Amino acid sequence: MGQTIQIEKAVSLKEKPDVSTVKFGTVFTDYMFSSNYTPEHGWEEPSIVPYQNLEISPAANGIHYGQSVFEGLKAYKNGDEVLLFRPDENFKRLNTSLERLAMPKINEEVSLNALYELIKLERDWVPGGPGQSLYIRPFVFADEAFLGVRSARTYQYNIILSPVAGYYGGQLDPTAIYVEDDFVRAVRGGVGDIKCAGNYAASILAQQKAAEMGYEQVLWLDGVEQKYVEEVGSMNIFFVRNNELITPKLNGSILSGITRKSLIELAEYKGYTVKEERIHIDELQAGLKDGSVTEIFGSGTAAVISPVGRMRIHGEDYVVNDNQVGPVAEDLYSHYTGIQYGHLEDPFGWIVRI
Amino acid sequence: MGQTIQIEKAVSLKEKPDVSTVKFGTVFTDYMFSSNYTPEHGWEEPSIVPYQNLEISPAANGIHYGQSVFEGLKAYKNGDEVLLFRPDENFKRLNTSLERLAMPKINEEVSLNALYELIKLERDWVPGGPGQSLYIRPFVFADEAFLGVRSARTYQYNIILSPVAGYYGGQLDPTAIYVEDDFVRAVRGGVGDIKCAGNYAASILAQQKAAEMGYEQVLWLDGVEQKYVEEVGSMNIFFVRNNELITPKLNGSILSGITRKSLIELAEYKGYTVKEERIHIDELQAGLKDGSVTEIFGSGTAAVISPVGRMRIHGEDYVVNDNQVGPVAEDLYSHYTGIQYGHLEDPFGWIVRI
Repeated sequence: MGQTIQIEKAVSLKEKPDVSTVKFGTVFTDYMFSSNYTPEHGWEEPSIVPYQNLEISPAANGIHYGQSVFEGLKAYKNGDEVLLFRPDENFKRLNTSLERLAMPKINEEVSLNALYELIKLERDWVPGGPGQSLYIRPFVFADEAFLGVRSARTYQYNIILSPVAGYYGGQLDPTAIYVEDDFVRAVRGGVGDIKCAGNYAASILAQQKAAEMGYEQVLWLDGVEQKYVEEVGSMNIFFVRNNELITPKLNGSILSGITRKSLIELAEYKGYTVKEERIHIDELQAGLKDGSVTEIFGSGTAAVISPVGRMRIHGEDYVVNDNQVGPVAEDLYSHYTGIQYGHLEDPFGWIVRI
Repeated sequence: MGQTIQIEKAVSLKEKPDVSTVKFGTVFTDYMFSSNYTPEHGWEEPSIVPYQNLEISPAANGIHYGQSVFEGLKAYKNGDEVLLFRPDENFKRLNTSLERLAMPKINEEVSLNALYELIKLERDWVPGGPGQSLYIRPFVFADEAFLGVRSARTYQYNIILSPVAGYYGGQLDPTAIYVEDDFVRAVRGGVGDIKCAGNYAASILAQQKAAEMGYEQVLWLDGVEQKYVEEVGSMNIFFVRNNELITPKLNGSILSGITRKSLIELAEYKGYTVKEERIHIDELQAGLKDGSVTEIFGSGTAAVISPVGRMRIHGEDYVVNDNQVGPVAEDLYSHYTGIQYGHLEDPFGWIVRI
């Protein structure tokens, strides 16, 4: 704590781009966090080094057998201040992911302090436009040159930073969703509840199928019965039914989203009734038919809230809330982002100011 | 076809190790196959380059989102000849894997020819001792520097080579197996039937749990009902019941093993009755109790056949065939490896001689 992290200075700094024209996750800052693991020394003292390519063996275990996990969070600018949103939660979940893939756990406090130092050094990279932020990507992968299937002995842990525009330019915009009946994202007993690399690759084909049919995202059903609502794209999902906020109960195959958790806390604070339930797709369909389901939205770090305007279930299309952003989504989104950007009071102690 | 592949010569060659003392998959040869993909040019003409580290972006999509698939096959030495076993099947399956993860397919014929050239160049690396071989690892992963979840635009395709000793020094040796009731490897609609990186990382924790309990491998049940036998470790599984050879029917979550398929063909050729069935774990347990199940073994490229000597089902231990290698396993193993090494006739056209 308070220990000064070693910084290797960059020879020259990059020109900062106009973030409003940059594609999500394609531009990276001048520096990155770096730490390596060996069984003999554990995680070495992290250092901050110039952003650079990694040199890895073609036999690196992480590439062949997927021991690779990540996190995603954001830094927000408010005047001269930079704000982080619940960064401790991300490092905690990173450890949950590491444990599930039999990878060595990281030190959460050392990681947090190193992140604060990295953000201080890169504060000019945090963009200040509406909806803009600095996306933070911690990730750990196995780099041992070894082709056997077992937990690797050596690992790399890095944090890279990417300035990003608002997912919808700071505006909410309803999307069209396709309920996937064939492909399965995850199953209890598997790894659907952690942020590991393999989950995402496995989801792309279904997303492409949805796109070909004119939908922007897939709604995933459970892997066992293929009947219960789990996630939407790579987000958690919420419904408004009879003025109550409903989200699928965590069951071992749904990611425990930090936005999900925080939205539940915020909604309860604001007086909404929130229920975590097992939701049958037929029940959702019935609610759309009879008008009791008035809003649907996804939740995640990238977009915070992503309203659903149209949904295809069992071959039938349903329009949600007239394909408009609903009042609950709007209310939660503006309050939530208000806290994130420091424009509204934070009664939860979520914000870390750098 | 017949086109000469470009070879970048290595400045110096490594000393070849005593393969009998080398750990599986830790020593690599002097050269590797390399080809890159861009949307503009597709797969570039492959080349053979000195074995070397890869330089990749820390934002490389394959690390973060797991678009990464591989194959495994072997080259065997018989006097001056080097033999490959059904290499066309591996490149065919590589394309199945690529397709499922929304990655660009490779050209199978170009790959085969490039592999032949690589093996010619590295023929002195193919070890000649009993059970020894040159393990061949083709793999493809996304290397686009991009943090969005979609199919990447750029990829790397490499083939690396590793001289390996026999899995059991050329001897079969029965293992102890733990039937996993909690963790799930795969589910229909998922990616269990392809060789993608994420499948393997997801299996390690269960394997560690089995090891802690004194077992060498996990027997995986289906992801839906957790009742039907699927795979053992990272191998397919076979049983001998009332002198018939039984293996789980391919169902979308079981890998379509090339050794599995070839063993079925060989066994039928030799007059065995072979059945592909859905096998309930209770049925297997009953067969072990009443003595109708006389042998169990795994099948895969690394070990060919791995006999099971002991199995824990629902908390009870069963000894299989007195913890000895059974006659069917022995018969198939010696015939199969006899064909692979060129000591026995190949009536199937499986062998490619280099």
